[in-house]
Amino acid sequence: MTKGHPALLTDHYELTMVSAALKDGTADRRSVFEVFARRLPPGRRYGVVAGTGRLVDLIRSFRFDRDELDYLRSRDVVDAATAEWLANFRFGGDIEGYAEGELFFPGSPILTVSGTFVECVLLETLVLSVLNHDSAIAAAAARMVTAARGRGLIEMGSRRAHEEAAVAATRAAYLAGFTSTSNLAAGMRFGIPTAGTAAHAFTLLHDDEEAAFAAQVATLGRNTTLLVDTYDIAQGIRTAIKVAGPELRAIRIDSGDLSVLAQHSRELLDSLGATETKIIVSGDLDEYSIAALAAEPVDIYGAGTSVVTGSGAPTAGLVYKLVEVDGRPVVKRSEHKATIGGRKTAVRRHKPTGTAIEEIVVSQGTPDSRTGDRRLQIPYFVGGSPVDGLPSLADSREHLRQGLISIPWEGLKLSAGDPAVPVTVVPAS
Amino acid sequence: MTKGHPALLTDHYELTMVSAALKDGTADRRSVFEVFARRLPPGRRYGVVAGTGRLVDLIRSFRFDRDELDYLRSRDVVDAATAEWLANFRFGGDIEGYAEGELFFPGSPILTVSGTFVECVLLETLVLSVLNHDSAIAAAAARMVTAARGRGLIEMGSRRAHEEAAVAATRAAYLAGFTSTSNLAAGMRFGIPTAGTAAHAFTLLHDDEEAAFAAQVATLGRNTTLLVDTYDIAQGIRTAIKVAGPELRAIRIDSGDLSVLAQHSRELLDSLGATETKIIVSGDLDEYSIAALAAEPVDIYGAGTSVVTGSGAPTAGLVYKLVEVDGRPVVKRSEHKATIGGRKTAVRRHKPTGTAIEEIVVSQGTPDSRTGDRRLQIPYFVGGSPVDGLPSLADSREHLRQGLISIPWEGLKLSAGDPAVPVTVVPAS
Repeated sequence: MTKGHPALLTDHYELTMVSAALKDGTADRRSVFEVFARRLPPGRRYGVVAGTGRLVDLIRSFRFDRDELDYLRSRDVVDAATAEWLANFRFGGDIEGYAEGELFFPGSPILTVSGTFVECVLLETLVLSVLNHDSAIAAAAARMVTAARGRGLIEMGSRRAHEEAAVAATRAAYLAGFTSTSNLAAGMRFGIPTAGTAAHAFTLLHDDEEAAFAAQVATLGRNTTLLVDTYDIAQGIRTAIKVAGPELRAIRIDSGDLSVLAQHSRELLDSLGATETKIIVSGDLDEYSIAALAAEPVDIYGAGTSVVTGSGAPTAGLVYKLVEVDGRPVVKRSEHKATIGGRKTAVRRHKPTGTAIEEIVVSQGTPDSRTGDRRLQIPYFVGGSPVDGLPSLADSREHLRQGLISIPWEGLKLSAGDPAVPVTVVPAS
Repeated sequence: MTKGHPALLTDHYELTMVSAALKDGTADRRSVFEVFARRLPPGRRYGVVAGTGRLVDLIRSFRFDRDELDYLRSRDVVDAATAEWLANFRFGGDIEGYAEGELFFPGSPILTVSGTFVECVLLETLVLSVLNHDSAIAAAAARMVTAARGRGLIEMGSRRAHEEAAVAATRAAYLAGFTSTSNLAAGMRFGIPTAGTAAHAFTLLHDDEEAAFAAQVATLGRNTTLLVDTYDIAQGIRTAIKVAGPELRAIRIDSGDLSVLAQHSRELLDSLGATETKIIVSGDLDEYSIAALAAEPVDIYGAGTSVVTGSGAPTAGLVYKLVEVDGRPVVKRSEHKATIGGRKTAVRRHKPTGTAIEEIVVSQGTPDSRTGDRRLQIPYFVGGSPVDGLPSLADSREHLRQGLISIPWEGLKLSAGDPAVPVTVVPAS
């Protein structure tokens, strides 16, 4: 759990840089830092911006309290003058960036932080932690949503992730189109619908399956989901319908060959008159296994481990780089990373049909405007104050849904391939 | 950040099970839940128990406050009677388990929670979140420590992980033998040594590299690390020694072919008289790339992404299963998972030389005692109260170090293979 403010969720070197810059007079140089990805994770065709809403709240409360400053002094992380400066620290700069739920590609300037060097560099670790985590989850979740083809998706991976990361993962999965979650903290904090009925333990607790189902229906009613695979699945389904009647809302199957089991379960439910009873499947589902069940009579998928761990890509590979100092573009030269300095402005260009065809990113300038262009950056902080009327989580969810419709259809394939939309970065002229 | 107590970091279904069990009279059945892994992640030969220390603190404060109960009632997650019961909830059962830093293998009963069904089931999600995350990080980190062969290892991955998961990851990496971290919150909360000096941005901020190095040395002294790869590395090293003199503590290289660069840098430093100046390398290092640098003149490794994401295994695959009800072993039958019910007692058997050869896990009984056997379970909670004198983080770190010495040498190889120590699970007789 977080003790105190988020300011200490920060790398030691951010503070030593602040110390040194305060001492040598470079602290106030006007600086622009940019968050972008050099590449997408292997096989991925798009990234999804997520976490910005959480980040705004964290930056708002980013300050150092007395205990934290005492700790920093006691370990000699900073000198007394720097501790004094930190005691009064409030971010006073500007932040603009892609809307939460926006797609991004290699080179997209998804967040731009500008102000004095010291106020911008202090935010680096926190900005990257939040965006790298949440964006990784949202991108994996979006692929599962595409694979589910309109069927419901429950996020149930909390137990496979750090207890607080799980809450953020739930938020990112919901942003990406998941319909509900098992995580109650995410329900309370973010208003996400929660779902859940019983585990195998509940059946094992009872003298037999029928007693367990009866207890559940007595408390939750027939509009519930009975977990039928603790013992024999066919018998479990018969018992479920015997106890709850054909009005039972759903059964859940959590193990075995889900493809075969879904077919047999549907036939059995129909034969028992439970034609409206839904089938929920879970158990190590990822985007590929969800896609493989497309032809089966499944109504709702439950995904856990794969969504909260980013399905093979647990971090989004975003970096936070100084690109401009006092109006001069700067860039690290070693390794010929071919990064272009300077503050960037980004638009996405679309065909008249609405399909996105290119992202144009101009350093220290503005792209020529054409019909079908959309500006990708919105303001988040101006002069240290959060902008009013930022998009809600529901807005961001809809924004992503529209974004996924706008990219070329190959971009939605699960197979590996190039980024769905190419990015052209234009250097300062 | 955590709002309120950890109780809501919990799956919805834990509470509906509590509701239903309170109503049908099964709530107080004496239950035993067990945490174990069915298998290790692909390629791994051991797991490392981590997170238990954090978990004890979280269980201690596991209660529901008024806002949380109002939320649960407003969404009809629980009925009024259950909300009332939750308002008074304190865990009153017993917990025993493997010491933090203990090695584990498939089938090892790493945590056993016993008490009434409802008090035990409520802890499921939180127990698994903490242990799955922290154990995954510790296992990956332990392999890096082995690969580093006594050289220093700095954990610097905070920016690649959720901001709170990063703090827990740091703790797990330190437990596994990392020497320090970049994460200040982990330094403050857990007393872990922190380290850090400057990023490329600090060099780019200045008019030239010499000015940046001079500013850093003016603030941090010569006992610092200069990052020499912003522009040309050889020139960076010459400038570093020019500014700091041959007493400079260390240089850091964060990009390029680290093997070649370490050799060239050592030669250059020596030729400049800086024979004691250390070489720190970083940049997407994992256990394999660390091992590949064993012959190079590297003094300290910095690892980031790979450690905080578990190097390909971001979750430990631990499950929390009901194994006993009112003294009767229970087990889920579907899928023939071959799990054996009943409360387990575990010992690890050793040769006279001290090498571990087998783990014996007996259901509802105690293994025959032999010379060289070590009991693996220690008490954590008795009657709801945490046991005094639990191992410190330093104790756990030493415990793991000794544990890794005790397993057969093949178990420390990075290549894939069987678990280092076989586990024999003996059913109740």
